[in-house]
Amino acid sequence: MTQRFPGSNPTRSRAVLHNGIVTTVATSPVKSDSMYEQTQGALAAITGALQAAGSSQAQILTAICYCADMSRKAELNQAWDEWVDRANIPMRAVLGVQLEGRDLIEIIATAAV
Amino acid sequence: MTQRFPGSNPTRSRAVLHNGIVTTVATSPVKSDSMYEQTQGALAAITGALQAAGSSQAQILTAICYCADMSRKAELNQAWDEWVDRANIPMRAVLGVQLEGRDLIEIIATAAV
Amino acid sequence: MTQRFPGSNPTRSRAVLHNGIVTTVATSPVKSDSMYEQTQGALAAITGALQAAGSSQAQILTAICYCADMSRKAELNQAWDEWVDRANIPMRAVLGVQLEGRDLIEIIATAAV
Repeated sequence: MTQRFPGSNPTRSRAVLHNGIVTTVATSPVKSDSMYEQTQGALAAITGALQAAGSSQAQILTAICYCADMSRKAELNQAWDEWVDRANIPMRAVLGVQLEGRDLIEIIATAAV
Repeated sequence: MTQRFPGSNPTRSRAVLHNGIVTTVATSPVKSDSMYEQTQGALAAITGALQAAGSSQAQILTAICYCADMSRKAELNQAWDEWVDRANIPMRAVLGVQLEGRDLIEIIATAAV
Repeated sequence: MTQRFPGSNPTRSRAVLHNGIVTTVATSPVKSDSMYEQTQGALAAITGALQAAGSSQAQILTAICYCADMSRKAELNQAWDEWVDRANIPMRAVLGVQLEGRDLIEIIATAAV
């Protein structure tokens, strides 16, 4: 009834699917200095994780973007706007937080399956 | 099966309803310098978005308040306490983050429909 | 259909259960100066709240750890790794935010019931 999808770390799942809803978290696999590129990377990782769980970008319900440098939110928005499926627009929030290491963005998304 | 409620921005939904749960995000429409007033504004916007989705304040399950100035959390609490439906009390958290522009608070709520 | 579990504050629920999913929030009851000890305390409080709602640690789906000092994230990870049920690994994120008073960590978890 609950499916858990392993990530690179043995004590955290990359995604969890329960009762038709998958929740997943991603940072950018490439730790570029560009907020635009890291946002592209994190969004692509979200899409990949959803597909692995039997969902898809079109089924995303919510996306919360945790941003390590709000002065560069315009770059985040640009990557989002290029990526978003305009027929299936998620609820989105962008919040400025501290992230670890060279991460500029971390995204948590929920999607229907 | 999934209903999406447009906001003022064409690439983000104001609320998303799926399988009997609506999730919505709001800031205050009035960018007052008062944490109390912005919290009132954001809470009213949450209530309005829930009503538009067929839900109501009494059906709120969770509310996460993202606060741009934790030194003024008492004002946030005051607005919350005046607003909350004491017969149907949500789980709530208040977290200090950076927000954009003159926003002092942003709230993400989930509710049953 | 919705069950609300009171906390110590009359205007906030400690946990809310709806349609087979419980969401709960906890800080550490003991406001130690140690991130490790506060993480242990918050995780134990999460487990307790889930049990009170008819769920359990093994049914946790997601956990978001809000951390007031990311320079001490290694301590948080240590407490997490010792606590986590390796047969049922949650999706987890750690985000650096401001918390109130002496709180070093606040955790929001969802679990199946």
